[in-house]
Amino acid sequence: MTTVSTADPHIFANRESEARSYCRTFDVRFTKAKGSYLHTDEGDKYIDFLAGCSSLNYGHNDDDMKAALIDHITADGIAHALDMHTAVKAEFLQTFQDVILKPRGLDYQLMFTGPTGANAVEAAMKLARKVTGRHNVIAFTNGFHGVTMGALAATGNSYHREGGALPLQGVTRLPYDNYIDGVNSADVLEKMLGDASSGVDAPAAIMLETVQGEGGLNAASPEFVKRVGELAKKHGALFIIDDIQAGCGRTGTFFSFEEMGVTPDIVTMAKSISGFGLPMALTLIKSEHDVFGPAEHNGTFRGNTHAFVTATVALKKFWSDDTFQNEIKEKSELLTRRLTEFAGYFPGHKMKGRGMFQGVDVGSGETAAAVCKYCFEHGLVIETSGPNDEVVKVLAPLTTPVEVLEQGFATMLDAARIVSAAPETIAAE
Amino acid sequence: MTTVSTADPHIFANRESEARSYCRTFDVRFTKAKGSYLHTDEGDKYIDFLAGCSSLNYGHNDDDMKAALIDHITADGIAHALDMHTAVKAEFLQTFQDVILKPRGLDYQLMFTGPTGANAVEAAMKLARKVTGRHNVIAFTNGFHGVTMGALAATGNSYHREGGALPLQGVTRLPYDNYIDGVNSADVLEKMLGDASSGVDAPAAIMLETVQGEGGLNAASPEFVKRVGELAKKHGALFIIDDIQAGCGRTGTFFSFEEMGVTPDIVTMAKSISGFGLPMALTLIKSEHDVFGPAEHNGTFRGNTHAFVTATVALKKFWSDDTFQNEIKEKSELLTRRLTEFAGYFPGHKMKGRGMFQGVDVGSGETAAAVCKYCFEHGLVIETSGPNDEVVKVLAPLTTPVEVLEQGFATMLDAARIVSAAPETIAAE
Amino acid sequence: MTTVSTADPHIFANRESEARSYCRTFDVRFTKAKGSYLHTDEGDKYIDFLAGCSSLNYGHNDDDMKAALIDHITADGIAHALDMHTAVKAEFLQTFQDVILKPRGLDYQLMFTGPTGANAVEAAMKLARKVTGRHNVIAFTNGFHGVTMGALAATGNSYHREGGALPLQGVTRLPYDNYIDGVNSADVLEKMLGDASSGVDAPAAIMLETVQGEGGLNAASPEFVKRVGELAKKHGALFIIDDIQAGCGRTGTFFSFEEMGVTPDIVTMAKSISGFGLPMALTLIKSEHDVFGPAEHNGTFRGNTHAFVTATVALKKFWSDDTFQNEIKEKSELLTRRLTEFAGYFPGHKMKGRGMFQGVDVGSGETAAAVCKYCFEHGLVIETSGPNDEVVKVLAPLTTPVEVLEQGFATMLDAARIVSAAPETIAAE
Amino acid sequence: MTTVSTADPHIFANRESEARSYCRTFDVRFTKAKGSYLHTDEGDKYIDFLAGCSSLNYGHNDDDMKAALIDHITADGIAHALDMHTAVKAEFLQTFQDVILKPRGLDYQLMFTGPTGANAVEAAMKLARKVTGRHNVIAFTNGFHGVTMGALAATGNSYHREGGALPLQGVTRLPYDNYIDGVNSADVLEKMLGDASSGVDAPAAIMLETVQGEGGLNAASPEFVKRVGELAKKHGALFIIDDIQAGCGRTGTFFSFEEMGVTPDIVTMAKSISGFGLPMALTLIKSEHDVFGPAEHNGTFRGNTHAFVTATVALKKFWSDDTFQNEIKEKSELLTRRLTEFAGYFPGHKMKGRGMFQGVDVGSGETAAAVCKYCFEHGLVIETSGPNDEVVKVLAPLTTPVEVLEQGFATMLDAARIVSAAPETIAAE
Repeated sequence: MTTVSTADPHIFANRESEARSYCRTFDVRFTKAKGSYLHTDEGDKYIDFLAGCSSLNYGHNDDDMKAALIDHITADGIAHALDMHTAVKAEFLQTFQDVILKPRGLDYQLMFTGPTGANAVEAAMKLARKVTGRHNVIAFTNGFHGVTMGALAATGNSYHREGGALPLQGVTRLPYDNYIDGVNSADVLEKMLGDASSGVDAPAAIMLETVQGEGGLNAASPEFVKRVGELAKKHGALFIIDDIQAGCGRTGTFFSFEEMGVTPDIVTMAKSISGFGLPMALTLIKSEHDVFGPAEHNGTFRGNTHAFVTATVALKKFWSDDTFQNEIKEKSELLTRRLTEFAGYFPGHKMKGRGMFQGVDVGSGETAAAVCKYCFEHGLVIETSGPNDEVVKVLAPLTTPVEVLEQGFATMLDAARIVSAAPETIAAE
Repeated sequence: MTTVSTADPHIFANRESEARSYCRTFDVRFTKAKGSYLHTDEGDKYIDFLAGCSSLNYGHNDDDMKAALIDHITADGIAHALDMHTAVKAEFLQTFQDVILKPRGLDYQLMFTGPTGANAVEAAMKLARKVTGRHNVIAFTNGFHGVTMGALAATGNSYHREGGALPLQGVTRLPYDNYIDGVNSADVLEKMLGDASSGVDAPAAIMLETVQGEGGLNAASPEFVKRVGELAKKHGALFIIDDIQAGCGRTGTFFSFEEMGVTPDIVTMAKSISGFGLPMALTLIKSEHDVFGPAEHNGTFRGNTHAFVTATVALKKFWSDDTFQNEIKEKSELLTRRLTEFAGYFPGHKMKGRGMFQGVDVGSGETAAAVCKYCFEHGLVIETSGPNDEVVKVLAPLTTPVEVLEQGFATMLDAARIVSAAPETIAAE
Repeated sequence: MTTVSTADPHIFANRESEARSYCRTFDVRFTKAKGSYLHTDEGDKYIDFLAGCSSLNYGHNDDDMKAALIDHITADGIAHALDMHTAVKAEFLQTFQDVILKPRGLDYQLMFTGPTGANAVEAAMKLARKVTGRHNVIAFTNGFHGVTMGALAATGNSYHREGGALPLQGVTRLPYDNYIDGVNSADVLEKMLGDASSGVDAPAAIMLETVQGEGGLNAASPEFVKRVGELAKKHGALFIIDDIQAGCGRTGTFFSFEEMGVTPDIVTMAKSISGFGLPMALTLIKSEHDVFGPAEHNGTFRGNTHAFVTATVALKKFWSDDTFQNEIKEKSELLTRRLTEFAGYFPGHKMKGRGMFQGVDVGSGETAAAVCKYCFEHGLVIETSGPNDEVVKVLAPLTTPVEVLEQGFATMLDAARIVSAAPETIAAE
Repeated sequence: MTTVSTADPHIFANRESEARSYCRTFDVRFTKAKGSYLHTDEGDKYIDFLAGCSSLNYGHNDDDMKAALIDHITADGIAHALDMHTAVKAEFLQTFQDVILKPRGLDYQLMFTGPTGANAVEAAMKLARKVTGRHNVIAFTNGFHGVTMGALAATGNSYHREGGALPLQGVTRLPYDNYIDGVNSADVLEKMLGDASSGVDAPAAIMLETVQGEGGLNAASPEFVKRVGELAKKHGALFIIDDIQAGCGRTGTFFSFEEMGVTPDIVTMAKSISGFGLPMALTLIKSEHDVFGPAEHNGTFRGNTHAFVTATVALKKFWSDDTFQNEIKEKSELLTRRLTEFAGYFPGHKMKGRGMFQGVDVGSGETAAAVCKYCFEHGLVIETSGPNDEVVKVLAPLTTPVEVLEQGFATMLDAARIVSAAPETIAAE
């Protein structure tokens, strides 16, 4: 395999765009990875509590997916097929139907968009507009849906929004669940939709994440999600759940909304859907809304064949019965307990998220950064989120063994102790 | 590996969105592919003159790339790393610098965007707006740059434009080279840019493809491209060449603009950049314009590690010396000769494109479809492009052996003979 | 003078666009008007509780303004001067400075925009964007600011918004004071502005009416207006008060915000500013924001000379001392008393507005229409407003003598009695 | 009449916004005006070759209009009536029908928009979008249609376009007749409309001025106008002629397009429609497109009653027979002769415009400004237009007696002689 011997040690600084990001925080060079561990070219080993921002819910290089992928490549299995029929796509469709849709009583058509979450969101927003003949999409404070211009309009983060230097359009912003103390956000939505003079144009769609990953692990209550879904229906709008980060088991069930009594009109998926970290995205569409013409929304890499191979294994292996789901539940409870302990070091902290998608608002971005820095120096990759990066978030692979989780938590607790005891070191960050 | 035995024969019709497209024309099920051939699950074999719309310039499952990729996976080489430093990314950067940039005297920073061409275009447009503080991007008639909302604004095709049901913004449309008989399109551009009252806002960028693939294989003259570049510079705009389809050797050189005497400020690449058909995209940026902040334009799958592995092999194998380039040149001449013969059957035809990116405007979409249908029935995958799908285009892998090319051409000539002799059959299409 | 003898009785139906509106409700032909009365060509006489939607705060054909205008015309005083210097403009500027600005300690530059309120708003929004380099203007639910595309984006009414068939842009909509029971709207604004990830782009301006005339006579509390002003300042946005309908004494003081402890950066005026009902509009700008270049925002009829003549008289006559203001105060109290009586007939009613800008939400548009219909049949012109036209509003000239006011109120009470007693007649509307 | 005695001599500089414009060039104070003359408060007298930018086609204070207006005011004729029926509106509608529409075989509905040209254009654009369900309006290089955001999108001038600091939308810009040497602009339009992949969205409307006043007195050929009209029809778009500046006789006939063999779907009028310089605007709509709902496009000052009085007189007095039209024709020929003489002083000059709407491109804005400055110093008000203000334009009242015209021309010729002889003085401007 290729080695780094020939590469200039300064090649990243010299040749990679300033847009590069995570590598600045984790300034080592990774070569291989397995399960819950990342390995560097210097032989160092890190526990991974980031998991490709939830793209590696099943850990790195799962042996079954790996074997299937090697078999496929070895047999000259087709690698790129545009959106032609392939045996592996058939297998994936069948598996998704049998393992995911049927047991949950769901009936969606699968649209393979370009293999990025943003692309799945763009397709969803376009489709909702086409179906309804309306232009307005309601999105929520702190939402993150991608940075291409259509999706970016729905994303709340000002740093990303300003990146485009063009006013974003087609989206009305309303407060997410529990956004403002003492304000019932669903009431705001209901009032504005019900008032012909509110200035909120009749919506094509209302789109939300049930847990806002980038927005700071804000978890919506089932009541809120349900009411939003009902209001969407009442007002002729499609209800879109962006399950790109919260889906694929991250909150405890395959879809993050399974236990909320809602059936979205459109669901977007990406990140862990391939199982192996390969680029793949999916837009699930209720049959009655499946009105795109052939290639009306297209893209060269829609339908990544290698990803179909691993995705099929992932679905069969982890979702054919309840075992995995039950494991996540137990680990989630463990996570809650340990984060509660961790949080105790930070006065005024807030517990955030649910399932294996939890974190702690430690009060400031500086404190959170100091925690993550300590962790990384002690063998743990972990990151922040939230409007001010003030939330230390745990995104461990769902397959992480309990003992490895505990090892990571121990490092976090050390970090909490050190950082909370020496606030002056934080200012130096 | 996975077989289709378990999949319902109607699974595509039942579960895949109506947005599916190529599979409608090529209604078979592909399983494997090698070099210039596609194989179905029924044992049929097709010559591939489509090459994943130019994503497979080096053919299917190239043995060297395949070996490197299997090695990487076998060794648990990292599969997903967000934009962290990895050994394989270092190797790709180094190779791109040494093999591509240096010999051509070019000095670009590499930005790994989300792995779709559209995402590379979105990044390019956003960056140009950020750099200049202007909003307007000038794009050309019949251009195709993707279907996410930012890129879609620059795309000409009305079928795609209407897909979004939201007026597209931030783009001024001007005629491409030779768009209107007797009109010098560069004169139109020059006049409009030089007139403070033209209504064309000062541009952030002027963006073009040197050959418009989807637009009908319209090849711009070097004079036009050069003048556009000069006008961009004169008026403070960035010059963007979208080389997603025309790049990676398709026109005869690595970049499609190499022999035109221009150095764009930004170049977008995707399709064949991974060499193997894996999703990957790249935005090349002159250092002085490399002003995105960390993760200002981001995405989970930016920097597809598997693609870096195969891309590095592809660059080293095909671009370390002139051999490959010379082969393309010879094959291009052969292609021109055979297409001239083919075109002879269609009165009023027009020869289109250049290099291995050529085709024939046969007069109507119906005729072109009839040709392609005949070809497919006789073992050749070939497609159309153009505003009315009136251009039969040849996008064979650049590595296709001459004898296989000739076999494909022979089928095309048969098709031309049959179709041109029986125009009534076309109406039946 | 021109008479109607030559006009076809069906000329309106035959030749005037379907966009015509008030004439449908008040289907008579007016010829002359004096003080608080409108006269028809059939010799009928109506008390005017509409006053040109607050464009006739000083009543019809005020004798002093009339004399000045006739003098001006008789002397061949200039009628149209673009924005050249004229003696009458000097006089108006001087008077506005001496009578309005100085006594209130205000220091504004006067911009004479095209003579419509919408034009004054367009100028204000453009200017705020130019001053701040930002694009976003925050406007409120139920706001009405005009129907040209820039102003329309800030207007809440969906009927008007849909009239343009183009998505409106550049405006974020937030709840007005007391919009939702139990929600402090200023808290919503504060939270969204203070959160870099809220999705509300940094605002160029926050714009509001202190009383929303078209929106249903919603009166903001001084606390709300003040907090909005402070938040605007804190976040680098200009604070715009649209005083087009609420200004010129309607709420009791010349500016509607005088007693609220705020000094807006920009104030828009129109409607009664000419005093005589002549088209005129004004945008008041703090000196430090007076950055439009010459004619950057222009228009042929900016600076209506005839209107300057009457406006100067109006300012001198009504605002040189407190007499008029005190009269309005007394009449306002009378109005409140009589509307309270009126409202008593409608269970669940709400009292709306303040000053001589009050009305009653009678529960439904049907009821309100029935009231107005009865009134018109009994010699009183009165109209509705609100999202569902559910508010019966009184917009009598501020100069209306008490006995005429009482006469109008008496008719309103009759209407209330009749309509509330026979709800079945309402359904027939 | 009001006098200036009380006004501070610096009141304009101190209190009027920097947006003021013409007053900078013509820095005197006008008091009265009659026919073709403007008079200042210092007793100076100027010949008016600007005529309120064509708002005073019948000269200042025409005695018949003046008398009718004084009669109306004296009789307490209604001054402001929203869009209620009034006797004077009936009279105007009847007169417009009898004098203008019938003799020309035209059948339009009249919509009284807010009394500015921009407002009439906003209404036209909104209506075309509503009628067609499309968003795109095609406008032309160097067009001027107003500066409110909807109209501004159709205006070409960058100084005005940038005034809004918000990207303008909904308009595609194409070259006007004879815009580029050797390019047939109608061919460009035809090609782009006929190509589904051109990137020009199916238009709601195509809008043009037959002579572009602000754009530099560019006169379209009848062939161009006719072809544009035909292309609009063919492609399902409404054909809008903006006759605000070129209409009301300026080019020789009441409508500027009368002799071109076209019948626009919508015509916008303003400027001289009131006859007296009073604010008034009009949108003429073919019955089948008269689909605005009541007040869907509204405005307080729509239907300026005083303007109806004078407009009715103007139509009866000047357009009841051919006399006036014939006079304009003769004066136009005189104007052409004199301008040819004038132009002779400027090498490389271009004759511009037609009818009483002519001027000379003297090569540079500096030269044109020097000419106008000399003229003003010698008793003649005259202005420039064009992208670089390089056209000296004559906009004399159509009623100007020949001897006054000759006097003005004489001054212009003097200016030409002086300025062309002393080019160094121009640099000093």
